[in-house]
Amino acid sequence: MPFDYIPPLLRDSSSKIILLVMDGLGGLPIRQGGPTELEAAQSPHMDQLASEGVLGQVTPIRPGITPGSGPAHLALFGYDPLEYEIGRGVLESVGVGLKVGLGDIAARGNFCTLDDNGNISDRRAGRIPTEDAIPLVERLKMVKVPGVSTEVRHVKEYRFAVVMRGDDLHSDILDTDPQRTGVPPLPATALSASAEPTAQLFNQWISKANQTLADNPEANGMTLRGFSTDPRLPTFKDSFGLKAAAISVYPMYKGVASLVGMQVIDFKGEAPADEFNALRDAWDEFDFFFIHIKKTDSKGEDGDFEGKSMVIEGVDQALPQLLDLKPDVLIITGDHSTPARMRTHSWHPVPFLLWAPATVRPDDQKSFGERACGRGGLGNFPSVNTLPLALAHAGRLEKFGA
Amino acid sequence: MPFDYIPPLLRDSSSKIILLVMDGLGGLPIRQGGPTELEAAQSPHMDQLASEGVLGQVTPIRPGITPGSGPAHLALFGYDPLEYEIGRGVLESVGVGLKVGLGDIAARGNFCTLDDNGNISDRRAGRIPTEDAIPLVERLKMVKVPGVSTEVRHVKEYRFAVVMRGDDLHSDILDTDPQRTGVPPLPATALSASAEPTAQLFNQWISKANQTLADNPEANGMTLRGFSTDPRLPTFKDSFGLKAAAISVYPMYKGVASLVGMQVIDFKGEAPADEFNALRDAWDEFDFFFIHIKKTDSKGEDGDFEGKSMVIEGVDQALPQLLDLKPDVLIITGDHSTPARMRTHSWHPVPFLLWAPATVRPDDQKSFGERACGRGGLGNFPSVNTLPLALAHAGRLEKFGA
Repeated sequence: MPFDYIPPLLRDSSSKIILLVMDGLGGLPIRQGGPTELEAAQSPHMDQLASEGVLGQVTPIRPGITPGSGPAHLALFGYDPLEYEIGRGVLESVGVGLKVGLGDIAARGNFCTLDDNGNISDRRAGRIPTEDAIPLVERLKMVKVPGVSTEVRHVKEYRFAVVMRGDDLHSDILDTDPQRTGVPPLPATALSASAEPTAQLFNQWISKANQTLADNPEANGMTLRGFSTDPRLPTFKDSFGLKAAAISVYPMYKGVASLVGMQVIDFKGEAPADEFNALRDAWDEFDFFFIHIKKTDSKGEDGDFEGKSMVIEGVDQALPQLLDLKPDVLIITGDHSTPARMRTHSWHPVPFLLWAPATVRPDDQKSFGERACGRGGLGNFPSVNTLPLALAHAGRLEKFGA
Repeated sequence: MPFDYIPPLLRDSSSKIILLVMDGLGGLPIRQGGPTELEAAQSPHMDQLASEGVLGQVTPIRPGITPGSGPAHLALFGYDPLEYEIGRGVLESVGVGLKVGLGDIAARGNFCTLDDNGNISDRRAGRIPTEDAIPLVERLKMVKVPGVSTEVRHVKEYRFAVVMRGDDLHSDILDTDPQRTGVPPLPATALSASAEPTAQLFNQWISKANQTLADNPEANGMTLRGFSTDPRLPTFKDSFGLKAAAISVYPMYKGVASLVGMQVIDFKGEAPADEFNALRDAWDEFDFFFIHIKKTDSKGEDGDFEGKSMVIEGVDQALPQLLDLKPDVLIITGDHSTPARMRTHSWHPVPFLLWAPATVRPDDQKSFGERACGRGGLGNFPSVNTLPLALAHAGRLEKFGA
């Protein structure tokens, strides 16, 4: 359990919590003394919430550590990513919408190039473009091994994910990628006796798969890495007493949410307004709503400072849809920072806004931005503390001790 | 390893990090509403760096805990002093420039006064002044015990340090100081069978040493405490991937730096400019530079508020020497606070300035001082986080997870 002391304190409540995550929200100025993306955005609703609420900054993993999306979301959901690890195969698979259930084994796959002797000449098959890789993945979908089912999905360029399902499978298997060229791929090798049969099933699958790729000299082989299974995380319901819904356009975030037992909501459209409509439609059924906005991160990775600000403005314009629902607690933050200036995820702390009309202790900040959050009343704290704070402000925790 | 999750994330880089430590930097106002020593100092270069960079406050050990110099530096180097302990004998020895290698045994010594019955009448030999103690230490240097070598150095007043070197020595030995008068010093007593021979060797050394002191009634005996050996700290290179240089006038700080595997740079002179010149000369050879300024602490311990401010001003005047080298990351902080008003180390958090032109997220503080640091964007954090932050800002860490 992420916080052992919380389940005994949980109490029934009909209160509602919204966690609005703008991916990669934190930014940097692009000129000395200038604003960040968030500070530059015209966001009157968020500024109003900042005036009425309290600000702070969150550190997703540990100071100085740049998070991947999986660990960053786990942290926001209250699970310390150094304690609760999701295997790389599972993360890649859920990231493209493959389900990894209890006992299913997931792996990440790379197409590679094999020479006439079967040795690897290019570990990434010349970084084969997506349009060339998709038909090869279609071939892999046809490969069958008796006794188990397999599901394959393309990820990006030379990368794919594969999930094997069957009885008594184990993930204790070494990567087949030898990490260098001039040698053949390694066989899938079990690290324990119980994983032996699973390794053999993967080797059968690889062998048949390589046959179907043989006539395609640039990408005529593969390596598999990160064999892993459902991490069996303590559920969100057990950990925090919340019936939780996840609303996201992208499969990765739905996947991580489903690994902690949130219910993924299907909806049409991609705009913040579409996501907020989906939330409204599910309002009566859940206690907790995780909404994920992807494009702040995408614009950050593109180096598009203004584009990132505009995504934030778009979210701000749609915010009244959420406020009309009168949530008891609304938290607006990010999973990590993605400064347009750096074009990548970064370790910088993430702006955090907590609004809870009945219980918040306001600070004297009037706008939502990095500098204001640095002076905010909540200070600088780990992302994993988000859930306990949300529960408290939602009136869902009893007193500790007498 | 101080941070288990860091070594797997390390990546090669040619970036350069400078950690400038002004010993005892943190201070207190001497009149209601007045400035601290740092706030009173005219330090235009540091103020400029504060405008461009980000401020915070560091807590060396734990809140409320006043650190000694050894643990305070360990913390700044990334080693939690509650987890990584340096024995008192080792600390005293490296503090006066004695080398304590693997298997060497170090102890702190006190001269004491023995009466005619061999009982201690004064545990500190009347706090014998340094000039009287030095000739006695010269006598101790002559004392030899077969099978081992010993090295002795004076520390201050009635205190000295001794290091024994030989084969198969063990430090598991009780203090010989009985902590009261009217009884004789205790023999060196082994706490384990393997330390038995070492205890006997120290007893032989003490017995011979006492003979050479016999004609000096005020300081005719000794006690030894803090038997300890090289703490075998994980190296700075393994922990943080940095080739590190230490630049300090005083042996204590060179000693602690060398215990984590930093290379100590020899140079002439004592002024900040001399230390900065030494850094420039070593610039191409190292990734990380620890520079230690002692006199802020000395002036603080003297209760000399203005003197401490002037030391800070002297460092500020020399700062362009460092800036001309164009470091990727420059951190200016202290190991602990030594407010002139208190004339001693204190537990108060320490002002912290991080400047990293390519990656810093600036706050809106414009000057380097305690109050500004209390409002700084980095907040209040443990000193051990200094290194992870430095690595991140120097572009030396990969992303954690996918």
